[in-house]
Amino acid sequence: MRNTFIDNISLEETKPLFFNRIEKYSKKETIPTEKSLGRVTSSPVFANVSSPNFNASAMDGILVRSKDTETASETNPVTLKKDKDFLYVNTGNPVNPEFDAVIMIEEVVEAENGDVRIIKSAYPYQHIRNVGEDIIKNDMILPSFHEIRPEDIGALFAGGIFEIEVVKKPKVAIIPTGSEIVEDYRNLKVGDIIDSNSRMFEAMITVSGGEPYRYSPVRDERELLKKNILDAVGKNDIVIINAGSSAGTHDYTKSLIEELGEVIIHGIAIKPGKPTILGFIEDKPVIGIPGYPVSAYFVYQEFVKSLLEKMLCRDDEKADIVKASLSKRIYSSLKHKEFVRMTLGYVGGKLVATPLDRGAGVSMSLVKADGILVISRNNEGHDIGEEVEIKLLKPLSAIKKSIVVIGSNDPIMDRISDRIKLSLSHVGSFGGVLALKKKETTIAPIHILDSKSGTYNTGVLNKYFPSGDAALIKGIKREQGLMVPKGNPKNIRGIEDLIRADLTFMNRQRGAGTRILLDYNLEKLGIDNNDIQGYEREAVTHMAAAMSVKSSTCDLALGVKSAADILDLDFILVDYEDYDFAVLKDSLEDERVLKFIEYLKSEEFSKEIDNIPGYKLENPGEIVEIS
Amino acid sequence: MRNTFIDNISLEETKPLFFNRIEKYSKKETIPTEKSLGRVTSSPVFANVSSPNFNASAMDGILVRSKDTETASETNPVTLKKDKDFLYVNTGNPVNPEFDAVIMIEEVVEAENGDVRIIKSAYPYQHIRNVGEDIIKNDMILPSFHEIRPEDIGALFAGGIFEIEVVKKPKVAIIPTGSEIVEDYRNLKVGDIIDSNSRMFEAMITVSGGEPYRYSPVRDERELLKKNILDAVGKNDIVIINAGSSAGTHDYTKSLIEELGEVIIHGIAIKPGKPTILGFIEDKPVIGIPGYPVSAYFVYQEFVKSLLEKMLCRDDEKADIVKASLSKRIYSSLKHKEFVRMTLGYVGGKLVATPLDRGAGVSMSLVKADGILVISRNNEGHDIGEEVEIKLLKPLSAIKKSIVVIGSNDPIMDRISDRIKLSLSHVGSFGGVLALKKKETTIAPIHILDSKSGTYNTGVLNKYFPSGDAALIKGIKREQGLMVPKGNPKNIRGIEDLIRADLTFMNRQRGAGTRILLDYNLEKLGIDNNDIQGYEREAVTHMAAAMSVKSSTCDLALGVKSAADILDLDFILVDYEDYDFAVLKDSLEDERVLKFIEYLKSEEFSKEIDNIPGYKLENPGEIVEIS
Repeated sequence: MRNTFIDNISLEETKPLFFNRIEKYSKKETIPTEKSLGRVTSSPVFANVSSPNFNASAMDGILVRSKDTETASETNPVTLKKDKDFLYVNTGNPVNPEFDAVIMIEEVVEAENGDVRIIKSAYPYQHIRNVGEDIIKNDMILPSFHEIRPEDIGALFAGGIFEIEVVKKPKVAIIPTGSEIVEDYRNLKVGDIIDSNSRMFEAMITVSGGEPYRYSPVRDERELLKKNILDAVGKNDIVIINAGSSAGTHDYTKSLIEELGEVIIHGIAIKPGKPTILGFIEDKPVIGIPGYPVSAYFVYQEFVKSLLEKMLCRDDEKADIVKASLSKRIYSSLKHKEFVRMTLGYVGGKLVATPLDRGAGVSMSLVKADGILVISRNNEGHDIGEEVEIKLLKPLSAIKKSIVVIGSNDPIMDRISDRIKLSLSHVGSFGGVLALKKKETTIAPIHILDSKSGTYNTGVLNKYFPSGDAALIKGIKREQGLMVPKGNPKNIRGIEDLIRADLTFMNRQRGAGTRILLDYNLEKLGIDNNDIQGYEREAVTHMAAAMSVKSSTCDLALGVKSAADILDLDFILVDYEDYDFAVLKDSLEDERVLKFIEYLKSEEFSKEIDNIPGYKLENPGEIVEIS
Repeated sequence: MRNTFIDNISLEETKPLFFNRIEKYSKKETIPTEKSLGRVTSSPVFANVSSPNFNASAMDGILVRSKDTETASETNPVTLKKDKDFLYVNTGNPVNPEFDAVIMIEEVVEAENGDVRIIKSAYPYQHIRNVGEDIIKNDMILPSFHEIRPEDIGALFAGGIFEIEVVKKPKVAIIPTGSEIVEDYRNLKVGDIIDSNSRMFEAMITVSGGEPYRYSPVRDERELLKKNILDAVGKNDIVIINAGSSAGTHDYTKSLIEELGEVIIHGIAIKPGKPTILGFIEDKPVIGIPGYPVSAYFVYQEFVKSLLEKMLCRDDEKADIVKASLSKRIYSSLKHKEFVRMTLGYVGGKLVATPLDRGAGVSMSLVKADGILVISRNNEGHDIGEEVEIKLLKPLSAIKKSIVVIGSNDPIMDRISDRIKLSLSHVGSFGGVLALKKKETTIAPIHILDSKSGTYNTGVLNKYFPSGDAALIKGIKREQGLMVPKGNPKNIRGIEDLIRADLTFMNRQRGAGTRILLDYNLEKLGIDNNDIQGYEREAVTHMAAAMSVKSSTCDLALGVKSAADILDLDFILVDYEDYDFAVLKDSLEDERVLKFIEYLKSEEFSKEIDNIPGYKLENPGEIVEIS
């Protein structure tokens, strides 16, 4: 019952196969104009009335007969009799047909008896808005397939259009499948997965101009899924089946579409998103979207969004593309086109792009991404420093405000980024120093112990920036130590226990300051790292290391106290270390860096740190020059 | 009771005076996550649960103990016993703690007895998604003041956030004022104005993230307006009073804000939008916005939109700016900063900008605008051909698709523009020829009679394009004639009647083909145009000319039959004329022009024309070369 065969057709070949099969969508409905914001006209809209529908005064002033004023001049003013020769009018008042011109109130001299004197002649129809000046009855106000904006609604009302025919929102069914998927989030059991994709789809469909209809998750039972698909096809214009599109034993989607209609494609050469199914049931498009959130996102963009744009005859919005320099080498396979989520930031005037976690399961990579790098199928990847094109997900103005921070990770950085916009990448302390050297980061958080002097951070900067162009912004002192399960059931006492046969360790990646601290202590104790079980396993952040202890993937890991506290682990202090911020001296004039320093020195930051055990402050924000 | 004094303070000076007085907005509310699209977080959001919250298989395959597989190779496969040594798993299934690795189903050879053979060792935690791979409990999912997107909703659900604290939508009251303003559009009387601005504001406020609350129009009674303002201030965060902000006798807005609070500014040096009032009542901003729709639009953008962005801590969206070449000279006064609505289009690769109607009452200029030219206060205007900066209102991709059409006006052009995107400017036939000569238009619709030969259009092109680089695309034949009121009450028989003392005429602008036709006929009849009442009055389009007859502004005008028909006027035929499209020969290879020609030749166009009296077709789309 397993469908092990999956195609690997290119995205470019897939699209015409699918889109050319779509029938013209022509459902319409008439709605009140005031509810038409964002909707799309289905036919041209012609004015019912003229605007204004009468000749109107365009000024505050008096209504006159232009003939009466012909001789008026400064030396020879003309006097007009109240009610007989003129009438007061405000802007917008109808023009009494007896009169044919308006004189502005500023140009009128009022006499005590109510008469007025004027010193300038008025030409016929002076300051009069003619009937239809704005809109003439039967003028086309909007063409067909126009997306209605606030200013259009204003013009429609002015033209007497109180109801408008628009394209009916295409209905899109979302069927989440899988016995592990739960909708009710209370009392989650091990193995349960919260249905988050459907909620993302609902919002995406709303943004694309469709009307989402979300089903409750369907258990892995073929007949049950069949019933739901038939119901959805009957009531909707597009059907999304989420997950079950792969080759697992419970992946019924493909065989059901085959049974009820036709499968066009199963398997596209894109990453993420390969196990996509494109098919039709009763001429309605049915799309099997893979379950990983990032796959779900991209497959939606390529197929459902395009489909809705086509149905609504909306212009396909083209994302803006910028050129940026890669801060990290990226390998990709020739087997597929890849969509890589990237952060972007300006470092000394240069736009730098850094890849985020490439796992299809990492929905946070979508949240954090500033843009997307598309690596085509015939491309093995890009070198560090290479100029690449990035599709923007955020406006460049927002990206300009944020500071690129590449280096060591600490949970405090997220807290800071809530106040000062930071574009964070965790590559360890050494990675940070190298990025700074190559001008790919503005700030490099580091904690590197100099094994000779026993001091932090200045040693490494002296070595890598011998000409003195770097500086150190003092940050925080933090407790590093062993994170062990609550109650320390295996009675771990310190680093010396790492060689115990009953213990499995989780290390940090090469270049991480925490790993340097470990190696420094192992050397002091004369321990060979080959004797440590798990030395070769690497977590990339303190929280990931803590989580591996929490989930019993290992027995202990080295990390900061704050991470252990967050997950309610026990903590055995190893050392207080200096977690500081390396920068190039030039950056100390960067307005964004100055704000960062100001925040480190602020009382607000001091209070924030006081609330988190495991940290202390000693002159944060102080500048240490490297000579 | 008239407030004749109005300030003229620059926009730049006004803004700090107003915005620095705004108090920090800090209203919050907790809403279900699925309803949070487009809302703004009021504080950082931290995950409630990890995702996944268990170690999960990352592949479809089998769950094994990595130790059991250590020796596996192609030459020495390892056999694993069903249920004892391995379990089948699908992607996302929890990892039974007995096992520590997943082997992909594609790499497994199944034996008949249910056992499997493998030929490659598995490393520990191979193809296993660790607890928290995506999100770790207490990770920051979103920072504060973040506008929530679909991908954020996905991550929030994955992190177990089912309710979220967001900034409460600021409530904005809209009070339309003026006894002439009506909400109920049935049975419009002369002098009534449909309340269209409030509807535009409602939609604009929705787009800006606020919650609009629209009042019914308030009559010009001081106490009534006062009651409404007090009600609105009590229930809302911002109050807009629309119109009544000028210096008319019924403009109570200023004196009421003064009575109930404080007026900061009355009169800003912008056009349109001068008579704006900025004030505060009970510390709430109260904004008096002028009544003309275009003024209303710009004053909203400068003050209400910015205010809402500030309250919601949203990044102020900066419109994209492009450089374009002006097709027409624009004068502006040193008295104010001016916002001019522009159409944009590519002509032979060059982006050309043409001003739309600059009247503050012309809401259609907002509908038609592709961008805004801001002319600063110390600038008298811009020359034809000058490069200017335009703020885009539409994506450049949409602008690229449309054809620039400058020249003579005919109602049929609107119909064509519903099928083929056209960027239309009406400057008359001669204006079109000149624009074509200066390469500022791609198509110039013209109908110019050669008085010597009595033929249309080829003569003028021969003269202006002697080197033969122009061509004529044949268009339509149309009836031109005198438009007179229904029933022809003044018994007008033809052009010869124009000199009658009881008749007032409405002419077309200089350079219009219709005016050339008139002058040609006057000359034939030996009539001096000084003898015609109204010869100097000009309407810019056929519909405007027809409307001047319909509204009794004049007794007759010359124009096309279709315009007379639309307004139910009588029509006296003068001549059939050729309304054709002049282009440069190069453009005949432009894909957009080819589509235009294709449409002229289509059966669809032929049917469209059949339905409109006053037109006929003779080889439309045929190319006539000019030698």
